[in-house]
Amino acid sequence: MTSTIRSRATSKAQAQPKAPAPSKDIHIPSPLPTTPDAQAAEDLRKILDGQFGELREDIREMLDDSFFLPKLDGTIDDMRDALLPVLERFRDAGYSYDSFSRANGGSGKPDRAVIGLETLGHADLSAMVKAGVQWGLWGGAIDNLGTERHRHYIKPTMDLELMGVYAMTEIGHGSNVAQLQTTATYDPETQEFIINSPTPSAMKVFLGNAARHGQIAAVFAQLYTPGVAESHGVHCLVVPIRDENHNPMPGVTIGDHGRKGGLLGVDNGTLSFDNVRIPRENLLNRFGDVDEAGNYTSPIESKNRRFFTMLSTLIRGRIAVGGAANAATRTSLDIAVRYATQRRQFSPGGDAPEKRLIEHRSHRLRLLIPLAKSYALMLLQNEVTARLYEQQRQIAEGILDLANPTEEQLLASRELESWAAGLKAISTRHATRTIQECREACGGAGYMAENLLTTFKADSDVFTTFEGDNTVLIQMVGKEMLTAYARDMGDLSTIDMVRYGFDEVSDLIRRRSGLHKTVQSALDAARRSNDNSLFHAGYQVSLLEDRSQSILKSLAGRMRAARKLDLEDAAIEVDKAQDHLIAAGWARMESLALQSLVEAEGKLPKNSPARQVLEQVRDLYALSTIVENAGWYEEHNVLSSMRIRMARAAVRDLVDSLAPWAEVLVDAFGIPKSIWNVPMLNQAGVDGPRY
Amino acid sequence: MTSTIRSRATSKAQAQPKAPAPSKDIHIPSPLPTTPDAQAAEDLRKILDGQFGELREDIREMLDDSFFLPKLDGTIDDMRDALLPVLERFRDAGYSYDSFSRANGGSGKPDRAVIGLETLGHADLSAMVKAGVQWGLWGGAIDNLGTERHRHYIKPTMDLELMGVYAMTEIGHGSNVAQLQTTATYDPETQEFIINSPTPSAMKVFLGNAARHGQIAAVFAQLYTPGVAESHGVHCLVVPIRDENHNPMPGVTIGDHGRKGGLLGVDNGTLSFDNVRIPRENLLNRFGDVDEAGNYTSPIESKNRRFFTMLSTLIRGRIAVGGAANAATRTSLDIAVRYATQRRQFSPGGDAPEKRLIEHRSHRLRLLIPLAKSYALMLLQNEVTARLYEQQRQIAEGILDLANPTEEQLLASRELESWAAGLKAISTRHATRTIQECREACGGAGYMAENLLTTFKADSDVFTTFEGDNTVLIQMVGKEMLTAYARDMGDLSTIDMVRYGFDEVSDLIRRRSGLHKTVQSALDAARRSNDNSLFHAGYQVSLLEDRSQSILKSLAGRMRAARKLDLEDAAIEVDKAQDHLIAAGWARMESLALQSLVEAEGKLPKNSPARQVLEQVRDLYALSTIVENAGWYEEHNVLSSMRIRMARAAVRDLVDSLAPWAEVLVDAFGIPKSIWNVPMLNQAGVDGPRY
Repeated sequence: MTSTIRSRATSKAQAQPKAPAPSKDIHIPSPLPTTPDAQAAEDLRKILDGQFGELREDIREMLDDSFFLPKLDGTIDDMRDALLPVLERFRDAGYSYDSFSRANGGSGKPDRAVIGLETLGHADLSAMVKAGVQWGLWGGAIDNLGTERHRHYIKPTMDLELMGVYAMTEIGHGSNVAQLQTTATYDPETQEFIINSPTPSAMKVFLGNAARHGQIAAVFAQLYTPGVAESHGVHCLVVPIRDENHNPMPGVTIGDHGRKGGLLGVDNGTLSFDNVRIPRENLLNRFGDVDEAGNYTSPIESKNRRFFTMLSTLIRGRIAVGGAANAATRTSLDIAVRYATQRRQFSPGGDAPEKRLIEHRSHRLRLLIPLAKSYALMLLQNEVTARLYEQQRQIAEGILDLANPTEEQLLASRELESWAAGLKAISTRHATRTIQECREACGGAGYMAENLLTTFKADSDVFTTFEGDNTVLIQMVGKEMLTAYARDMGDLSTIDMVRYGFDEVSDLIRRRSGLHKTVQSALDAARRSNDNSLFHAGYQVSLLEDRSQSILKSLAGRMRAARKLDLEDAAIEVDKAQDHLIAAGWARMESLALQSLVEAEGKLPKNSPARQVLEQVRDLYALSTIVENAGWYEEHNVLSSMRIRMARAAVRDLVDSLAPWAEVLVDAFGIPKSIWNVPMLNQAGVDGPRY
Repeated sequence: MTSTIRSRATSKAQAQPKAPAPSKDIHIPSPLPTTPDAQAAEDLRKILDGQFGELREDIREMLDDSFFLPKLDGTIDDMRDALLPVLERFRDAGYSYDSFSRANGGSGKPDRAVIGLETLGHADLSAMVKAGVQWGLWGGAIDNLGTERHRHYIKPTMDLELMGVYAMTEIGHGSNVAQLQTTATYDPETQEFIINSPTPSAMKVFLGNAARHGQIAAVFAQLYTPGVAESHGVHCLVVPIRDENHNPMPGVTIGDHGRKGGLLGVDNGTLSFDNVRIPRENLLNRFGDVDEAGNYTSPIESKNRRFFTMLSTLIRGRIAVGGAANAATRTSLDIAVRYATQRRQFSPGGDAPEKRLIEHRSHRLRLLIPLAKSYALMLLQNEVTARLYEQQRQIAEGILDLANPTEEQLLASRELESWAAGLKAISTRHATRTIQECREACGGAGYMAENLLTTFKADSDVFTTFEGDNTVLIQMVGKEMLTAYARDMGDLSTIDMVRYGFDEVSDLIRRRSGLHKTVQSALDAARRSNDNSLFHAGYQVSLLEDRSQSILKSLAGRMRAARKLDLEDAAIEVDKAQDHLIAAGWARMESLALQSLVEAEGKLPKNSPARQVLEQVRDLYALSTIVENAGWYEEHNVLSSMRIRMARAAVRDLVDSLAPWAEVLVDAFGIPKSIWNVPMLNQAGVDGPRY
């Protein structure tokens, strides 16, 4: 084993002497210069910001103010109230207007709204969530599910004069929204809906804005009309919850969740309804309406599709949550990397000065691998946000009617939903792991609240759960893959699978997810030249995509087998395949993230320092992902043991090469200094700050 | 891939039809009965409690009182003060006396003290840490480093009348204790020591009891005597920090860390000294003394060994910290498992009732794998605690003199230190990961503070850092392995390594770590019969130990190579081997944990339900550890791809088999109901609690 661990940088000639690699390793990168290039950070920032550079720069400038840092003083209610001025600053800068369509009086800039929320995640996730609840969830429900008769709610919502609650989750049903128990029963006598919580498990829970500030709620409930026994499915209705004196409305019981694991500034509470009457017009009737006589109509005939169409308007929240998790992760990495470049501990021996943490190999590995992944996820985030923006543009311009999409639009929407779900899952999982790692990498100082890491950890913790539990979301990705596969294959018969040649990975990629040209040509180049260097971008993409497709293929086989069983046994088999479905989803998202990196590096001039750095970031992300799944690659004979060892050695070489550039890599995030410049960077025990 | 995923339980006959396993798989366990045996929980509890059953039962009974739950109300100072009554209850039950030697007026029951602290971790880690600081660290310093002239501190310390601080860590030097900067300079004129913080980085930080309750401190400082330029090394001195009015003593500056990521009840603060004078007698002089004239003497000649002997008295704290982390992890698993057996979400289809979370495959995997590891770690904890007890007994009976140990005693002490370090590292890492997983597995309810998981997560977070950073501790294990290896080999020459036959793993185990007979005979049985069934306990041990020894062997090779380089290059090479050293340490601890499981199951009657369950727990721990390191096993040709796939399939089968026993497995922990019976188990949205 010793030979593979020897650093290529110091002993390139002797590397792997026993068994020469089978590839022409013409792509092996040289170690980067040990003195970083000053311009590179700026060049990288432009790439990372992508098409949203100006929007991001604007809000970063605004956030460069300690006013935006997390507020942890006083009682819980003090912390809750302290968020209101933050939201007001946000409103004054116009972000609340961006969330809403022009038709409803907003400025109709969903990209600015999403980027704004996401970037707020650099500073304070409580503020991000509170803003998201008020404008994205409550406001978004009105904007997306309501019609002109609900327009009057919008302006006071944007202006923070009407604080709203988004009441979907019930204590009995979180992820399983279709089974919600709250009822909205139409009474033609009075032309009212009666909102009721028929069972204790129908209580609405975890609702932001409910415990303290909320005046009104968008309540999801099973809709019943006279003479129809069955529910028309889950619909959303506007229910006032507090009167002008801020007391609960008659029939409304409000609870307070009190202390949570984090997000202490968000006033999460509960709502129960005891036959609360609201006017008929309070039904948000874009996708389903009840007339005065009590007749139900909907522009979408299928109850199932109607349900999913309503839910699909949630997508923006999911994208913002994933984005904010990524932003908090980048801030955490920024802080931990700067600390690692300033903090010294342990001398290599004798009178030599103690080494900076970043000079220790184990510290490089623990910080730079997640840093590379953060690059990949930020770039993927850009792509998904751009697609959302395109979808919203089509809606605004009347090109897309959600109630009546073309087949192609429907497929595009499904894919966007799947990507948004998967991106939220992979980003929040990455956040939980990476922020934890950053905290530990800063030792005891990392545990002091003033250095922000523990607050980011505590606040982001629930991001893996809300806006869709990750375990459920990543299965959505797997299911969308399976559906697309069945669609493409026409059938799941073995003969077809063989006939369609699953080895031609690149064809499938092209057909199915509209990859960018750069990625495609990298793939083609790798295939054409039969180049399987571990450092070839195209080969790396094919390795990650191959894994995703292989798991999908074997999953499809299991699903096909299950079709022959009776319902109960089939359900057992499908459940047993759950970890398989989940694995397919994760593999898919890892592949997409790599593709975003490949795409981005193509935009930088060849041989520029920024390009060289970004290529090694991409190598590090790709190879560390492969090493993480080494078992799979070996078990499926995709990579030999020797090549996996080479990948491991390369990961070590890459962190050594990138270490002197670590500060450049975080500078490129452009995080305002008032955020990252935490006390521990300025205390004794670290070298003087370098700015 | 499909064939390996098919459940053995439902289709045993067809399993792995393509390539029959090379082993005689006579050990393949049958699925457990789906109705658990009531007696099994009690039988398992006895095994888990080991020789400490009575002690554990006593304190569990005391803890069955909501008085001991974490206190999160009010201001930070309220939370801090709320811990004092908890410590008083602990004192009244005699635990504080157990910490101290009979010679000093204690009751001399270190095992009861350690088990008490550890078990307190089931309920409240803040209380555990506060008690640990007062009696274990401050009190332990006096008890272990002091002499008769310091005895008068002990009684008020035990009685909570004298609150003490353990002032070791400085802001400039946490892990690197030898480089501390605080000075203690002897002044023969006045026969005083002058305690000084010569630089800002000499400030003592993160000190429990300092911010609010502490009156006195054990301060670690470089010791200087007149006429000797060099420090005699780090020594510990008693320094009063607050006067009778609780104001800081002259020259002492006290700071408050305020809000931290957790452990809010512990009043961590800072101390700086401006030429503070204390009497000569305040030097804790067991291992080094200064006479009136200023002459330094020590019973230990080597400065290095003296330093490590003083540090070795820290070992009890480390063992208690690892134990408490394990206890908090078990409570978290207990809560998450019970929630999983009561909470329903998603119906398999049609009108079928929603399934319990534990019925979903992915949920079984996420909870039962760490549950199996918790079994292993608790059993290893017992062994290490027993060794500590034995060491303390030898000290108390005058058989062991720490200043003058026999060669054999020295080796035993080193091994105990290494085990304690490694156990603390593996236990706290397991805690951080598992409690996080438990929180996520309980969804939004898991994020509410009343359900305890977020507090366990936040409080245990810093356990990976304090009492020795895990990254440093696990390297201690690697280094001890390397030292033992060099000792055994006499030299590290290749010829010797070959001659000593590293393939004979079992010989090395026997020689080096005094394994128990059961493990040895399992190993021997596997070797004798050439039985390489993945379910054979002996073969499992050899697989885990083989990994640990192989990494060690290749590490030794790198170290040997470094010896030929000059100092600077050698340091670079050694640092590059850091991740290698770390890997060796983790592998070693994983192997030891498995050995503890094998040892324990031997104590249960063959074919008893408890034994069958424990065997599958052991299978699950062993095989999931192997799968986690699948890449290594394949790269080193220890296991074929086919066998790794079998191991993966077995992990799935095992969680299916164990799932109906999940509540039995956590019942066996014996955690008091007043702790695990959190609100979410009694709310709507779960099936009625089953007790």
